[in-house]
This record gives sequence, C-alpha cells and structure tokens, in this order.
Amino acid sequence: MNYRFIFHITGQAILVEAALLLCPALVALLYHENSGWSILITAAIALAVGGVLFLLGKGAKKAVYAKEVFCAVSLVWINLSLVGALPFVFSGQIPNFIDALFETVSGFTTTGASLVNQVENLDHGILFWRSFTHWIGGMGILVFIAMLGTRSSDNALLIFRAEMPGPDVGKLLPKASDTAKILYRIYLALTMLEIILLVLGGSPLFDSVVHAMGTAGTGGFGIRSDSIAGYSSYIQWVITIFMLLFGINFNLYFFLLFKKFRAVVKSEELRVYLGIVIASVLLVLWNIRPLYASAAHALRDSAFQVASIITTTGYSTTDFDLWPAFSKGILLILMVIGGCAGSTAGGLKVSRVVILAKTITAEIRNALHPRHVTSVTLDEKHVKDSSGKGAAMYFAIYSGVLILVFLLISLDGFSLETNVSATFACLNNVGPGFAQVGPSAGYALFSPLSKVILTLAMLFGRLELYPMLICLSPLVWLSSRNHLR
Amino acid sequence: MNYRFIFHITGQAILVEAALLLCPALVALLYHENSGWSILITAAIALAVGGVLFLLGKGAKKAVYAKEVFCAVSLVWINLSLVGALPFVFSGQIPNFIDALFETVSGFTTTGASLVNQVENLDHGILFWRSFTHWIGGMGILVFIAMLGTRSSDNALLIFRAEMPGPDVGKLLPKASDTAKILYRIYLALTMLEIILLVLGGSPLFDSVVHAMGTAGTGGFGIRSDSIAGYSSYIQWVITIFMLLFGINFNLYFFLLFKKFRAVVKSEELRVYLGIVIASVLLVLWNIRPLYASAAHALRDSAFQVASIITTTGYSTTDFDLWPAFSKGILLILMVIGGCAGSTAGGLKVSRVVILAKTITAEIRNALHPRHVTSVTLDEKHVKDSSGKGAAMYFAIYSGVLILVFLLISLDGFSLETNVSATFACLNNVGPGFAQVGPSAGYALFSPLSKVILTLAMLFGRLELYPMLICLSPLVWLSSRNHLR
Repeated sequence: MNYRFIFHITGQAILVEAALLLCPALVALLYHENSGWSILITAAIALAVGGVLFLLGKGAKKAVYAKEVFCAVSLVWINLSLVGALPFVFSGQIPNFIDALFETVSGFTTTGASLVNQVENLDHGILFWRSFTHWIGGMGILVFIAMLGTRSSDNALLIFRAEMPGPDVGKLLPKASDTAKILYRIYLALTMLEIILLVLGGSPLFDSVVHAMGTAGTGGFGIRSDSIAGYSSYIQWVITIFMLLFGINFNLYFFLLFKKFRAVVKSEELRVYLGIVIASVLLVLWNIRPLYASAAHALRDSAFQVASIITTTGYSTTDFDLWPAFSKGILLILMVIGGCAGSTAGGLKVSRVVILAKTITAEIRNALHPRHVTSVTLDEKHVKDSSGKGAAMYFAIYSGVLILVFLLISLDGFSLETNVSATFACLNNVGPGFAQVGPSAGYALFSPLSKVILTLAMLFGRLELYPMLICLSPLVWLSSRNHLR
Repeated sequence: MNYRFIFHITGQAILVEAALLLCPALVALLYHENSGWSILITAAIALAVGGVLFLLGKGAKKAVYAKEVFCAVSLVWINLSLVGALPFVFSGQIPNFIDALFETVSGFTTTGASLVNQVENLDHGILFWRSFTHWIGGMGILVFIAMLGTRSSDNALLIFRAEMPGPDVGKLLPKASDTAKILYRIYLALTMLEIILLVLGGSPLFDSVVHAMGTAGTGGFGIRSDSIAGYSSYIQWVITIFMLLFGINFNLYFFLLFKKFRAVVKSEELRVYLGIVIASVLLVLWNIRPLYASAAHALRDSAFQVASIITTTGYSTTDFDLWPAFSKGILLILMVIGGCAGSTAGGLKVSRVVILAKTITAEIRNALHPRHVTSVTLDEKHVKDSSGKGAAMYFAIYSGVLILVFLLISLDGFSLETNVSATFACLNNVGPGFAQVGPSAGYALFSPLSKVILTLAMLFGRLELYPMLICLSPLVWLSSRNHLR
C-alpha cells in the first residue's frame, strides 16, 4: 500500500477544507455569532493536521494500484468528515461527536438526513457550514483538487471514476484538470443562477444561498423544520426545476457549452430520466388529488416531492409520510433509481438501471432465440457485456449492503417502515424516509450504533460501494505490498 | 408455437388431476360431507376438459424450442389451478372464484397464503384437497407425469429444469422417468415417516396427514386458525425437523440412497443452509428471550419459525408479527434466501445466493489484483462465468417483479409493512407476512386486483420467473412460427 500517496492526498484535501472553513467563519462574523470561533479553531486544526499529513506524504509516488486510489478516496472522505464535524461540537450546537459526525457525513455525502430537531436554533455560521458541505460534497472535493492541477492529479482520471457517481464517466477533455475546471464552472454558474432567481422571488439572501447549495449538491439541509413548505409557490417551483437540473449528467451541460446539441438530444439516460419524472408526477398527482382542494397545489406538491426524491435531494413541501401507500411506494422506488450518472444525485443512477433492464431483456431474447443474438445499446453505442454484468453485480452488492444495514439498525426495535426507509434514505443519499424518519421527524432517536451504521451507509452510497468496500476489506491491508514507499 | 404439444401436456395434467381429486372425494365420503359432490363434479369436469385437450393434442411433435416448454409449464400450472379452484366454489366454502383461485394457486405453489378467516369452518374433504395441492405442487405435477414415462417425457429434462426449483438440476439417472420415480419415492417415504411420527405423538390421523402434506410441499396450509400453536412441543419439534428436511436438495437423499456419502458431506449448499439456520435460530433466540419465561420455549419457537420461514413453509407456533424488529428483519431476509435448490422450498435458493456472493467476492478480488484471476467454485467444482452472471440476472429480474408487485398492491392503501411482506411472502411462496398479512391475519382484505396480482406472483415464484415471464411475453405469441403443427 502506497501510504505516502494516501497521506499526500488526504493532507491536500484537509488543507483545502481549512480554506473553505473561512466562508462559514465569515458568515458567523457578519451575524456577530460566537460560534464563529469554533469554526476558526477547526480551520486552525485542519491547517495543522492537513499540513503534517501533506509533509508526511511529500515525494509520494503516483498510485499504481486501483486499490490505492479507492482507499485514498474513502479515507479522504472519512477524514474530511471527522474534521468537518468539529465546529458543531466546539460550538455546542451538536455537542455529541457521533451526532456531529452523522450530520457532517450527511452533509458531505449530500444525504441531508438530520439529527437536529429544531434547526431554527442553529447559528447562521453553523447553518451555512452545514449546507456548504452539501455544495462541496456534491461535485466532490477531489475533483476540486484535480482542478488545481497538482501532482496528485496524475491520478485524476482514476479519482474521477472513484468519486464521480455513475457507471461511466467520459473523458471529456484530454487533461483531467481542464475537465474539472469546466465542470466546476458549470456547477457554480447554475448555483448562482438559482440564488438570483430565489432572491428575485423575495427569498432572503441567506435563505437563497443555503437552499441553492442544498439543491446544487442534491443534499437537502434547510433552515426551517418544515423545509420548503413555508415558502411561496414561485420559490417551490424554482427549487423543483433546479433539483431536476442538478440531477442531469453534467456532461450534457458540457456538450451544451460546446454546442454539441445532437449529443444532448441523443442522450437516452436524459430521456428515461425525464420519462420517469413525468410518469411519477402524474401517478402521484392522480393518487393524492383527493387530498387537495386545488389541482394546481396537488401538482406542485407532487412535482416537488418527486423531483426531490428522484434526485435524492430530500427537501419537502409537505409531510409525504401522510400520503397514501401507492405514492409512498413510488417515492421508495425513486429513491433506489436516483438521478443520472455524472450528476450530484445518489441512488443506483438512471443509466445503470437502463443498462440492467436492457441486459435482462437481451438475456431473455437470447434464451428464446439462441441463434439471433441481441446486443445491448445505449445512446446508439454498443454496451459491452461486462457493463451489463457490472450493473448486475453492482446491484447485487448494493442489495447486500442494504440488507446488512437494515438488519443492524433493526436492533433498535423501530418499525419495519422506519428501518426500511431509513436504510434506503441513507444508502441512496436521500435524507428523509417514512414514519420515524419522515420529513416531519428525524434520525435523533436511533442508538449511537445505528447512527454509525447509517453514517457508513451514506459513505457507501456516495462513493458507490467499491471504494468503501475495498477500504474496509482486510485483504487490502494484509497484503504483503503494504510497505512505505 | 407448438400448440398441439401444449394441448397434449395440459390435457395429461388435467386428467391426472381428475384422478387425484378422487382422494379428497373419498375423505368427504368418510366424513359424510355433502361437499364431496362438488369434488366429484370437478373430477368429472376435469375428465372431460382434460380428455378433449388430450385428444386435440394427439400426435403432437416433441417441443423444439425452450419457449414452448416454458409456456407449456406455465399453462399447465394455470389450468390446473383454474380446475382445482372449482371444489371451493361449488361447495360454497369459498364462493368467490377469484378467492378460490388465489387459495388454489397458493396451494399448488406451496405458498400457504390464505383468504379463509376461520379455517375450522371448512369441511374435511375440502381441507384435505387444500393441503393435497401442496403435496402435489411441492414435487411438481409434470415431474409426476414424467414418472409415468409417457411420450411427453421426451422433453422430461427440459420440463425438469422449468418445474424443479434451483439454478441447476443434475441429471441423476440416464432416463428422466427413472429419476422422477426415485424422487417421488423419497418424497412419499419422508411424508409417510412424518405421518407416523406425528400419529405416535398423539396427533389425530387427519391432522397428521394434512400437516405432513403441508410440510412436505413446504406449503403451510393448516386446519386451525392458530396453525401449529395448539399442538404439543413434541409435534412442534417433529414438524420443525421435517420442514428443514424438506428444504434440502433431494439429490442428496438420492445420493444417500445410493450410498454416495461423500457427495452429501461435500455439499456446500447443505453446509451453508444449516449454517444460516443455526445462526438465525441463535440470533432470534437472543432477541426474543426476554419475552419468554423459559429458554426451552423460546428456543422451540425460534427454531420452528426460522425453519418454517427459510423453507418457505409458513406454519407458525406463535404470532411472530409481535416479535421485535430485529427478529422480523431476520425472517424477512430468510424469506428471500429460501431453501436449497432441488427441494420443495421457494425463495432465491441457497445455492443461488452462494454463487452470487462468491461471484461478487471474486469480482472485487479481480479488481484488486487484475493479474491474479480468482475463479468461483461450488462443491469443489468450477462454476462457469455464465452461472455467476445468471444468478445476478435472476436476482435483478426477481427484484423487478418484486417492485412491480409491491407497487400494484400498494394501490389498496395498506401499510408499507403489509405491502412489503405480502409481496415477499407470495413471491417467495412463504405464505404469512407481517401486519395485515401476519400469522394471525390473512389476505382476505386485499382488493380483487391485488389478489390476482399476488396469485401471479406466487406462480412467478414457484416456476422461478422465466416460464411465466416468457409465457406472458407478447414476443412469444406474436412470433411468425405460431402455426399449428
């Protein structure tokens, strides 16, 4: 194991975090909040720890094995969260470290599951940091580092693969740092546009920035206990549209920027994604219509919740736990599907589901007509057999993790509905589930053990299983090649 | 499509059913029950319908395509159930035809899900027929026909594959009819042994026969509302052990008979199956111990329920819906795993789960050490890559069917726990689930649409997806080759 490489990249990431912590500190200063000190102290600690790790990793050779990159990525995310949890603890706003860690991982992984019962009681600086982690985690901290074009970006493509969601991240430009720069610019531009539209709709600047960051990362942390329910219908529609926009593969914005419109129109994943959204909105609308006085309100709530859940954001404008079973069933399935590959959304990803469905159909066709072999295509391109197998394997591992998490948190003795939906909501980085973990409730009642399990589940989901699986595998650490190089 | 072949084999199956219906008619006669007439009338109808179909199919050529066998098997099971439902309707004991069909399919597929609220109100002849369908469906009606060594048994091996559960049915003897004969003898012998042991324990003969048939088929229909709870602990232990015995691959009994002890000891599926049973019994015992005054009673209930659920039988000695969430979580997972391949049990099957788990591990190892390729073995034999892919595909299709059934029955508006466990219990041929469909409740409250959906789910599960999937696929019926031959 190339420890130096891991030190080097983790050090870099924590140093970047130290710099990023200055933003919430500035917010705290503006609001004259004492909790600003806890953020500054954390920044100082991050500077020291990051600096030491960076120095320890000096002269690190490039990673050779995929396992080294996978482990490095997992450890970066874990360490980033360990440090990022400190402001909550130091400020006393979430005094318990396990709770603070849960909240931070929930932030970085863009889950949005919260332990805070009265979010209105938190300081502005802390609230800003909480939502800022969504924004950072959405695009990925390592993609950010790749953008800087440092030495570790030699491994940039591998890191992209490990940190960016989806079965297939295209190499858009020859240099990974150039790709990262353009992706981050698109990300920033879309976020800015949303902030402007929210402010124009009468939402205060602070609210607008926090909600835009939560939308961009498909996170879901808000600043009110009733999430977005208290805002105007204009604000709700703006957020609905931007949630859906951030659930689209960023490569497509890249293509738009380079005027490759054909590639956008041809995207099968986009069409399936929009198809699922429209079908779900209509089915839910039909199912919940009797609960509403006006069809417009029912449509708004249906569209908002569907957009929020399929993109795994987790904002809400109504307590969808009170919806009929059919609508809740649809939401549960949308949690698993998730957004498009290469977006900030979680879940299995639409393209993976499409490949899986097509592979199954091809298998059945081939069984029926052995002489007439059907091959699987996506965007008119041939999909390798290994991708079909890969999607099926991914799904099997995903189910295995799901079952394990579900079983372990069941030890707390809550209802099946709570346990199933909490597992789905954390592993898919959604946030709210049903019953005890519904939009009007939270994760505070779980035991510390369950909180740790769910924290790990969020990391498994965000990094798409393999990095965490490999990082936690004893095989990797017992290997004979684990010397310092 | 070779219609003649389908007519021929369906006709044969219904003629056999006509003969089998004489058994419950005899029981009704013994108890002087009028409902005996409804059974006899059904037998007459079966004779007529079966005879006509048989004549229509005269001179049928052997099936050439796998799809023909798959469709034939599905249609045999559907038609068998349509006829088998008539005694319930004619006797007025389950007057609604959809309900009667649900109950019959639940019987033949060895599910044991019931719509009858007070099973004590049913006549002995009807009760016997209800449980006899378990016994017939457990080993498979077409295996029975293969045993007769008729012309259609030319396709016996293909039919075996379609009707016998599990990823791989070994060709035990050169002639399929010989294999079928021995399998049926083992099945009969084990059932007889259980009847004798139950009678020796003081259980009345009728109760013993019915329960032995329910155990043998891993079905679960009983004759009391509280299932097996009212019987002595001796009876409960006997049933526990026989449920586990009927969940073992019948090939192993075959090997025992031929004194091939090494093959039995070497069976990895058997060891994993027993390992899962022991681990589950201990975990549930630890979890439910505080609810019981004596450890012996807790152990008995734990062992009984675990054996009943993993073998997908569905008998109960306690209302496990009242158990803590952890134990219910374990039961839910056992439902999915199911018994061994080549047994009468449902679920994914242990060997399929083992192949899946091993393939995943091999995939991860190969990703870590690309130069050192790990291959998957089962019983010290190399497992083909296609089996790994096959298991993953099977699991993916299984999940797709699961999601669809879950969503459709959600329309009835019951709780998530009811909908999830009802879907699991029917697709895996278990029977009871939790909440509304728990051991002390039933499926009577579902709408007719949901009953039909769940009926189809039971058939999908029993025939292991592909036959039903292919039979319901428009592709098959729109093919240009669909002329009468």
